[in-house]
Amino acid sequence: MSSPNTVNPDETTAERYQRGLQIVQDLTDDEPRPASLDALERDFPFLSNAVNAYAVGEIFARTVLDVRTRQIALVAAFATLGLGDFIKIHAGYALNAGATEDELKEIVYLTTIPGGFPRAIQASQALTELFASRAERR
Amino acid sequence: MSSPNTVNPDETTAERYQRGLQIVQDLTDDEPRPASLDALERDFPFLSNAVNAYAVGEIFARTVLDVRTRQIALVAAFATLGLGDFIKIHAGYALNAGATEDELKEIVYLTTIPGGFPRAIQASQALTELFASRAERR
Amino acid sequence: MSSPNTVNPDETTAERYQRGLQIVQDLTDDEPRPASLDALERDFPFLSNAVNAYAVGEIFARTVLDVRTRQIALVAAFATLGLGDFIKIHAGYALNAGATEDELKEIVYLTTIPGGFPRAIQASQALTELFASRAERR
Amino acid sequence: MSSPNTVNPDETTAERYQRGLQIVQDLTDDEPRPASLDALERDFPFLSNAVNAYAVGEIFARTVLDVRTRQIALVAAFATLGLGDFIKIHAGYALNAGATEDELKEIVYLTTIPGGFPRAIQASQALTELFASRAERR
Amino acid sequence: MSSPNTVNPDETTAERYQRGLQIVQDLTDDEPRPASLDALERDFPFLSNAVNAYAVGEIFARTVLDVRTRQIALVAAFATLGLGDFIKIHAGYALNAGATEDELKEIVYLTTIPGGFPRAIQASQALTELFASRAERR
Amino acid sequence: MSSPNTVNPDETTAERYQRGLQIVQDLTDDEPRPASLDALERDFPFLSNAVNAYAVGEIFARTVLDVRTRQIALVAAFATLGLGDFIKIHAGYALNAGATEDELKEIVYLTTIPGGFPRAIQASQALTELFASRAERR
Repeated sequence: MSSPNTVNPDETTAERYQRGLQIVQDLTDDEPRPASLDALERDFPFLSNAVNAYAVGEIFARTVLDVRTRQIALVAAFATLGLGDFIKIHAGYALNAGATEDELKEIVYLTTIPGGFPRAIQASQALTELFASRAERR
Repeated sequence: MSSPNTVNPDETTAERYQRGLQIVQDLTDDEPRPASLDALERDFPFLSNAVNAYAVGEIFARTVLDVRTRQIALVAAFATLGLGDFIKIHAGYALNAGATEDELKEIVYLTTIPGGFPRAIQASQALTELFASRAERR
Repeated sequence: MSSPNTVNPDETTAERYQRGLQIVQDLTDDEPRPASLDALERDFPFLSNAVNAYAVGEIFARTVLDVRTRQIALVAAFATLGLGDFIKIHAGYALNAGATEDELKEIVYLTTIPGGFPRAIQASQALTELFASRAERR
Repeated sequence: MSSPNTVNPDETTAERYQRGLQIVQDLTDDEPRPASLDALERDFPFLSNAVNAYAVGEIFARTVLDVRTRQIALVAAFATLGLGDFIKIHAGYALNAGATEDELKEIVYLTTIPGGFPRAIQASQALTELFASRAERR
Repeated sequence: MSSPNTVNPDETTAERYQRGLQIVQDLTDDEPRPASLDALERDFPFLSNAVNAYAVGEIFARTVLDVRTRQIALVAAFATLGLGDFIKIHAGYALNAGATEDELKEIVYLTTIPGGFPRAIQASQALTELFASRAERR
Repeated sequence: MSSPNTVNPDETTAERYQRGLQIVQDLTDDEPRPASLDALERDFPFLSNAVNAYAVGEIFARTVLDVRTRQIALVAAFATLGLGDFIKIHAGYALNAGATEDELKEIVYLTTIPGGFPRAIQASQALTELFASRAERR
C-alpha cells in the first residue's frame, strides 16, 4: 500500500493534481481560492500544474511533519525573503491548521536572527494585514 | 511574576546573557561549544553579547513556540538563504530537542518551494554532514 | 577596425553613451522611453551615464550573444530576484527582438528551479501585466 | 564609568529601551515618528523592544563610528537588498546628522558594484521620494 | 498525441523520472554523473525524484526554448545568486548543447547588471574552473 | 576643467582604465595585487575593463564621499550579502585609507540590523582573517 511519504512511481499527474486541489481546499477552510491561482491556471498552465501537482500535491501531502509545523516553517522562509503575499497565504493555512496568531508572531521575532530587522518588520506588517482581514470575515 | 514571553524591563544584560549561555548548553546537549562562538567573544564582544543576550537569551527563551518547532523554522530560513554552517548548528539543536532526522529532511524538501532546487540540494548536503558527524560521535 | 566585442581604449564616454541611446531606441521599437530613465538623467546623472554608456552602450552592444538570448537571460536573472519592473522592461525588449510570449513563459517555468515558486509566480504576474499593456497599445 | 562602546552588564532593559527612544528622537529631528513603529509597539511588543532596546538602544548608541557614517553604511546595505522604505528612514537620519543629498546619491552610484543596476535604480527612486517629501515639509 | 509542452495528466511519475534520467544523460554527454546526485538518491529520495521527474523530466523536457538557450538562462540566474557549483553543471550542459565558451563569458559580463560585480567575478571563477576541467578531460 | 564628480564625455576608455589602475595601487598600499584580478584580465577582458574603468576608475574616482566612508559603506553592503572575499579586499582598502579595525568591527555589529546574525558572524570571520593576514605581513 502506498504511503504519502514514499514516491509512488505509478501515480499519474492527474492524481497528483487532484490531490493538490483537495489539499488546498482543506488548507483554506471556507476561504475563497486566491484569484492569483486562477490567472495562473489560464495563462501559465505548466506553473499551475507544478504548484498543484508538485508543490501542494506532493510536498504538502507528506505527513512526516504535521501541517501546522510545515506551514510555520514556510512562513519563516518567506519572511526571510520579504515575501509578504506568500506570508499571508501560508500564515492563513497555519492558522486554519490550528496555529495561533501568537505562534505566528514568534516567527516574526525569530526572523530577526536569519533575516535581520527589516524582514521581521515587513513580516509583522503582512501578519497585521492578514489578521485584520480574517477578523473582518468573521 | 515575570513570563519568558513578556519583556521584563528590570532585567539586566548580565541576566539575559547568563540565560543565553544556559539555553545554548541545553540545546547542545553534551556537544562541544562551537569554536566560532569563542572567537566571537574575544574579538567581537558586542556581537557575542548580542548573540547570547538577545538572539538566544531573549528569543530562544520564549516558550510560545516549543524548541523543536522554532529550531525547525530556523533551519527552513537558513536553508532558503544557503547558510550550511547555520543549518548544521540549528538542525543539531532541533535533533537534541526531539526532532527526527526525517523531519529535518522534510525541511529540505519544503525548501524547493521558497528557495528553489539549489538551496534544497545545499541543505541536503549540510544535513548529510551533520548526520555523519553525529553518527561518529556516538 | 574595432569590434563591438573588444574593448576599444580610444572610445570616448560620449561615444559609448550615444551608442547606448541608439540601442535603447532599437530595443524599445516605437514604445515611449520609460519615464524612470528621464528622472535618472536629471537627478542621478552618474547613474544615468552608467546605465547608458556601460550597461547598455557596452554590454548590450556586444554581439557574441544575439539580442533575444541576452534579454531572455536577463529576464531569468531578474525573475530569480523578484524584480517585476525590470522583468517587464527586458521581456519587452526580448519580444521586440523576436522572442515569443511563449518563450518568456518558459523562463517563468524555469525560474522554479533557481528561485523557487514565489519568484516564478511573481514573474508570471509581471509578464501578464506586460502582455496586457502591449495588447492595449496595438 | 561605563562607555557606550562596552557592554554594560548591569544595565536594565528599560534603560536600553529609554536610550533607544531618545536616540530615535535625536535622529528624526522634529519629524513625526513613523506610524509603523507605533503599530509594532501595540501588536508586536517583543519586536518593538528589540528595535528600540537592541538595534537603536545598543547599536546606534555606540560612538566608534559617527552617526553620519553609520547611517550611510546602513543605507548602502538596505540599497543592496532593495529595501526602499528603510532607505528612506535611514537616509533621513543621515541627512539630519549632517550628510548631504549628494553624499547619499554617491551610495546609489556605489550600489551598482555590490548590488547591480536594478538595486541602484530602486535606491535612486527611494531617495527621490525622500528628498521631495523633505522639500515639502520645509 | 502528447506534446512535451503540454502537461499530460495520464503520465506516471515513473515515466517522468525515466525521461529525466534520459535527459540528464543527453545533457552530460559522456561525462560522469555528478556524485552529488547519487547521494541525493540514497538519502533524500523525495528530492532526488523532484529533481529528476519535475525539474529535469518536466521542465527540461519542454521544447519551446531550445536546450542551449534554457541552460544559458539558467546560468544567468545561478550567477546572480552566486551559485558556483550549479553554474558549472549547467554551463557544462550548455556547452554540450552547442553553446561556446565565449557565449558563457557573455553571461558573466551580463551578470554585472542584475547581480553586481562580485557575482560576475564569482561566475567568472566558476567558468574558469569548468573550462579547465573540461580541457583536462579531452 | 573637469571634476572627478562630473561625467567627462570626452574621456577615453583608456584614460578611465589607467585611472582605475592608479586608484587600486593607492588603495592597496604596498600589498600585492590580488591574483584574481590577473586571471580576470586574461580570461574575461570585458569584465576586467569594467572593474578597472567603471567600478574603480569612475566610481572610486569620485570625491563627494571620502575614500574611507565609501569603502566602509561597501563593506556594509558586502557583509549583508555574505561576500567574505570582497569584505576582505575592501576592508583592507578602508584600513589603508585610515579606517581602524574597531570601525570595521562596528560594521559587523551594524550588519545584524539589515542582514541578520549569520551575515554578521560571517563578516566577523572575514575580518578576523584579514586582520591576521595583515598582522603577519608587518
